[in-house]
Amino acid sequence: MKFSYLIVCAAATALSVLSSSCSDRSNESNVIETEIPTRPEGQTDMIGFAAPAIDTVRVGFIGLGMRGADAVSRFTHIPGTKITAICDIDSARTANAARPVEEAGMPAPALYFGSEDAWKQLCDRDDIDLVYIATDWLNHAPMALYAMEHGKHTAIEVPAALTLEEIWQLVDASERTRKHCMQLENCVYDFFELNTLNMAQQGLFGEVLHVEGSYIHDLTEFWPLYWNNWRMDYNSKHRGDVYPTHGMGPACQLLDIHRGDRITSLVAMDTKAVGAPDYIEKTTGSRPEEFANGDHTMSMMKTENGKTILIQHDVVNPRPYSRMYQLTGTKGFANKYMRQGYAFEPGQIDSTLVPDYQNLSAHGFISEEQEKALLEKYTHPLIREVGEMAKTVGGHGGMDYIMDYRLIYCLRNGLPLDMDVYDLAEWCAISPLSAISLEHDSAPVAYPDFTRGAWNKVKGYRHATAK
Amino acid sequence: MKFSYLIVCAAATALSVLSSSCSDRSNESNVIETEIPTRPEGQTDMIGFAAPAIDTVRVGFIGLGMRGADAVSRFTHIPGTKITAICDIDSARTANAARPVEEAGMPAPALYFGSEDAWKQLCDRDDIDLVYIATDWLNHAPMALYAMEHGKHTAIEVPAALTLEEIWQLVDASERTRKHCMQLENCVYDFFELNTLNMAQQGLFGEVLHVEGSYIHDLTEFWPLYWNNWRMDYNSKHRGDVYPTHGMGPACQLLDIHRGDRITSLVAMDTKAVGAPDYIEKTTGSRPEEFANGDHTMSMMKTENGKTILIQHDVVNPRPYSRMYQLTGTKGFANKYMRQGYAFEPGQIDSTLVPDYQNLSAHGFISEEQEKALLEKYTHPLIREVGEMAKTVGGHGGMDYIMDYRLIYCLRNGLPLDMDVYDLAEWCAISPLSAISLEHDSAPVAYPDFTRGAWNKVKGYRHATAK
Repeated sequence: MKFSYLIVCAAATALSVLSSSCSDRSNESNVIETEIPTRPEGQTDMIGFAAPAIDTVRVGFIGLGMRGADAVSRFTHIPGTKITAICDIDSARTANAARPVEEAGMPAPALYFGSEDAWKQLCDRDDIDLVYIATDWLNHAPMALYAMEHGKHTAIEVPAALTLEEIWQLVDASERTRKHCMQLENCVYDFFELNTLNMAQQGLFGEVLHVEGSYIHDLTEFWPLYWNNWRMDYNSKHRGDVYPTHGMGPACQLLDIHRGDRITSLVAMDTKAVGAPDYIEKTTGSRPEEFANGDHTMSMMKTENGKTILIQHDVVNPRPYSRMYQLTGTKGFANKYMRQGYAFEPGQIDSTLVPDYQNLSAHGFISEEQEKALLEKYTHPLIREVGEMAKTVGGHGGMDYIMDYRLIYCLRNGLPLDMDVYDLAEWCAISPLSAISLEHDSAPVAYPDFTRGAWNKVKGYRHATAK
Repeated sequence: MKFSYLIVCAAATALSVLSSSCSDRSNESNVIETEIPTRPEGQTDMIGFAAPAIDTVRVGFIGLGMRGADAVSRFTHIPGTKITAICDIDSARTANAARPVEEAGMPAPALYFGSEDAWKQLCDRDDIDLVYIATDWLNHAPMALYAMEHGKHTAIEVPAALTLEEIWQLVDASERTRKHCMQLENCVYDFFELNTLNMAQQGLFGEVLHVEGSYIHDLTEFWPLYWNNWRMDYNSKHRGDVYPTHGMGPACQLLDIHRGDRITSLVAMDTKAVGAPDYIEKTTGSRPEEFANGDHTMSMMKTENGKTILIQHDVVNPRPYSRMYQLTGTKGFANKYMRQGYAFEPGQIDSTLVPDYQNLSAHGFISEEQEKALLEKYTHPLIREVGEMAKTVGGHGGMDYIMDYRLIYCLRNGLPLDMDVYDLAEWCAISPLSAISLEHDSAPVAYPDFTRGAWNKVKGYRHATAK
């Protein structure tokens, strides 16, 4: 008995093949493509871009709610900076955010507040080098565009851009104005991530083949804190992974994305929305008729070099916090959430390095004692340099401090930043691309090459240093 | 500045839409469909099928390598059975497998061996009720077909079928002959899985929205043990998740698949193959030019009721063993590998049940003490019934025993088996469907309704009992 399986790509030609051996299918692509705008004449890429060194980095902050006020406070601990101006629509928040600056004995910053475009006056000043944006998501890209057009480097909270249109606008603006446009992705500076990146860069995991990240964070207690309910409103109107960068940033650094590899396609799948409508009904008494964002969203990506990335998003269901951070290599494995640990192929770890070496088995995690010994050797140089200070200043356990420190360090030394505008583009693009895939039955979507041909110029991701 | 993004489904019509708002796209499906053979006239589905009760179940075993010999030994501990005949191509293995039967003081089974079709003689006997198949994968479906055609119930090791053709053949044979065709998926009987299923069925997790499973098992030390190198050979020739059922079985039971819900589509993505070619080169001195199976394969599925499943496969890289087993519900969360635990929405757990109730937080796992208290209440009835016996007899910690015990219990009591031929079909279909998706740039593939319309007859998965 033989069946012949008719495989129909709905809008394509039908053809008969036997079960899963589809090799005789035509070469037509199944991938949805979005338009890649042509790079304007005379404009060049920002790969390895470094701006002239700045002795004292003069910073203006926009958005002083949850994240922005913390950033202002942290900057009082970062040498070589001047907090020139701060801005928020709310006057009380602006005044509150200025307090730690004055308490640190620093000159009081100029304050902007009270109107929807007070921030423009901050960007218009000519005594600011860097505009640091920590507003609601919708204002990120428009503010950064304006700031770059007015001669400022920009650092933007995550996600820095929400649509492909915004992403390409930021890429073009950074290329055209020769200004840095960095996304403030703090999770690439967390200790486990940095140390593991160091191990990966030293070859400890062999070839890194598969990386996972996620933003699993039950926001129930946070929803009431967002100004004008913007975050829930945004989720209610947008399907797809709307908050992907905490998982994506560390994943892309491990895979050297646009430093020798690039993401070529994405497919996404989501559950229906239950948790958020439940929450809204519970807190307002009325259930929304429509809610776009599914409770759980998965995005899978493939790279030119045959690697894969999996990113997940769930902010409504009761789950332990997780950014996953998992890597599978040909010689080792690392996992941060929900169980932190490492595993290695027998023989992969120096026998003089870890205790009880004979008991290493790829089938289990190495012991806590072994992990401790391993970390003593592989602690990332940045953590050796500022880890203690980072823990003292704080900010998500120190990673926020290291992020700000590195941003300023690179600007002061005239170095390329740790994250360029293409990182921003690649890490944010999951949101619009996953939405396209979801709206098309999880069809694959081509991942734009935001470098427009320059993804293979640099080989391997590295933090720049002045030494 | 406004971009208009051209979205092109390669073989479909091109149209212009703004960034990710693709709502104006035509209604054409992007999903690849395979042919669903029409159910032959007069043949009916096997939903809820129960065969006449059998007082003493007479069993014939085929395949006495790794799993089969263990099964024969286990059956000496299962009341109401007779080990009538056993078969393997290898005579020594056949003799060895017979030993525990005789040692248990039971009648010596008839032995079949020595030829490629010795097993047919076993199936031809008229004093056997059940044929238990534990050979290499390629022989599973052909042997089961022959056995059913010769009037036997069949139980088949995983994966019971490898292609859509084999799957539909088994479905049709079971429907036509009115014989059970059960896949021996043991992992649905592991203790954590059974207890968690029990909690899910009692509503403790709210609505279960997303489930994950995997087969992550570094097989380096096992490759030399497979007869004629069949498993590595199979992987070398087949792309896709070739061993999905350990993750899929528990996931489908949690989601009541074909008991009120059904899987509608699948997309898959894989990495390139590195680990297996490395292994072959290391052990044979020569690297294969081609190797079909990627190191890491992911398959995402969506259901009619808006749920999702994620199944992963990696048998070559050094990783801690993991079948994942993770569920996300609207009111709770469970995870087995790599970190076993539960989390719940505040208020979801009875305050009199778990200690330190005030400290329950959806952001973290409940404590070990709380989990212990929870399990005391929610231990699955099957574990209460035979858990101690299962641990004594063994077999992957007891789950193999519970599986065999249930198979025989249901046959002796004339009950529907815990897993029917549609479970077999659904759990195995990931393999050919993922291969189709992978060969088409990760395009979505329609998941066939193997019940051909009967998936919604029964509401909710339950183990049948005679009481």
